[in-house]
Amino acid sequence: METLITGSTCYATIHVRTRLPTEFIDLTDRLQTLLATSGVRWGLVNVQTLHTTTAVVVNEHEPLLLADFQGLLEAAAPGNGPYRHDDTAARTVNVTDGERPNGHAHCRALLLPSSACLNVADGRLCLGRWQRVFLVELDGPRERQVSVLVFGEAGR
Amino acid sequence: METLITGSTCYATIHVRTRLPTEFIDLTDRLQTLLATSGVRWGLVNVQTLHTTTAVVVNEHEPLLLADFQGLLEAAAPGNGPYRHDDTAARTVNVTDGERPNGHAHCRALLLPSSACLNVADGRLCLGRWQRVFLVELDGPRERQVSVLVFGEAGR
Amino acid sequence: METLITGSTCYATIHVRTRLPTEFIDLTDRLQTLLATSGVRWGLVNVQTLHTTTAVVVNEHEPLLLADFQGLLEAAAPGNGPYRHDDTAARTVNVTDGERPNGHAHCRALLLPSSACLNVADGRLCLGRWQRVFLVELDGPRERQVSVLVFGEAGR
Repeated sequence: METLITGSTCYATIHVRTRLPTEFIDLTDRLQTLLATSGVRWGLVNVQTLHTTTAVVVNEHEPLLLADFQGLLEAAAPGNGPYRHDDTAARTVNVTDGERPNGHAHCRALLLPSSACLNVADGRLCLGRWQRVFLVELDGPRERQVSVLVFGEAGR
Repeated sequence: METLITGSTCYATIHVRTRLPTEFIDLTDRLQTLLATSGVRWGLVNVQTLHTTTAVVVNEHEPLLLADFQGLLEAAAPGNGPYRHDDTAARTVNVTDGERPNGHAHCRALLLPSSACLNVADGRLCLGRWQRVFLVELDGPRERQVSVLVFGEAGR
Repeated sequence: METLITGSTCYATIHVRTRLPTEFIDLTDRLQTLLATSGVRWGLVNVQTLHTTTAVVVNEHEPLLLADFQGLLEAAAPGNGPYRHDDTAARTVNVTDGERPNGHAHCRALLLPSSACLNVADGRLCLGRWQRVFLVELDGPRERQVSVLVFGEAGR
């Protein structure tokens, strides 16, 4: 994690190496640490993925529930397609060498948020009892980056 | 509603008691009041639920449309399951006494935003003619809390 | 595009005339220009639609993928209904002259974000290699407005 503090802002990039095609990576502890480092007491933490086949969601960290989520995403945008984005004979835009078929991953990403904007009150990240912040890998394994901005009033 | 103002920030927690399994609670008037109280003229209002079986959405307040939304959510994640999260024989994580089956509610929450970040321009909440901000109850009835941060420049 | 700068804030309304029932309008270049105008170096850009039958999403600008997205939305909320919102015999709320049936468009909007909150670091909009910001028209053609707030520290 690279961190940069300037005035009322703290900016960081979180690096994540995912291991599975679909995976939920809990970022909450890293965000809490970053907030503590920032010194911000009242403000916002904006957590933004830098990829188009991932998402950032807030939900409960319970392994069987995460399996339910995976089933839900599979039903919404099946992994076995077909997707026009994966038709290499027809594609003319953004074609890259060794690109793997990932139309399903883009479609799943469309249905999920690409960022989470969280409140900071009295130096604490506002999260309910069961809330955790996840990077959702939808086309892994890959190297991923999450951009985080902490913005607000420092304070005592 | 508890409200706290400090410098350029106004923080509040809105308490809502929901009455139905699925319910759309219109928060717009309360947000307008909070913005007026804050004195912020240019900035952001971030409206964030503190629960994992609710959502915050912006859409039209028309009762038959809200019934359509309920039908859409039922089709996306049926209330009669099955969900692995509800398999109390298999669950080992986050198990609580008297927990009711709510895998469907978590799945519906996954497909909806958990917060809404709204612009403030010249002291007014930027909302189009038909836009209203709702807390969406997906596993009611329950006591719910919504965290609201108004952040920006006060002004004349 | 009307733009207003005050202190650490830059506010603009982007006007878009859409031409198709479903359409993805790439706003990224306009947002980059606005950020450069603002002089903000560290902060946030919040991009918010002012309509209830549109969305703001971040994904890849590849024409066949956008066709996949259109198919996904059609599957999630079919254009041929039925929707109670379109039952003019039953509706009593928010009825307007010449209203066209658009329950499907509201339902599709419910499943997509109504805003995108993006980080600004060192004067640049934080977007990954493939990320572009789109206004999604779901009930076109229409005149649309997108509210944009750039908020943060100016700087050198």
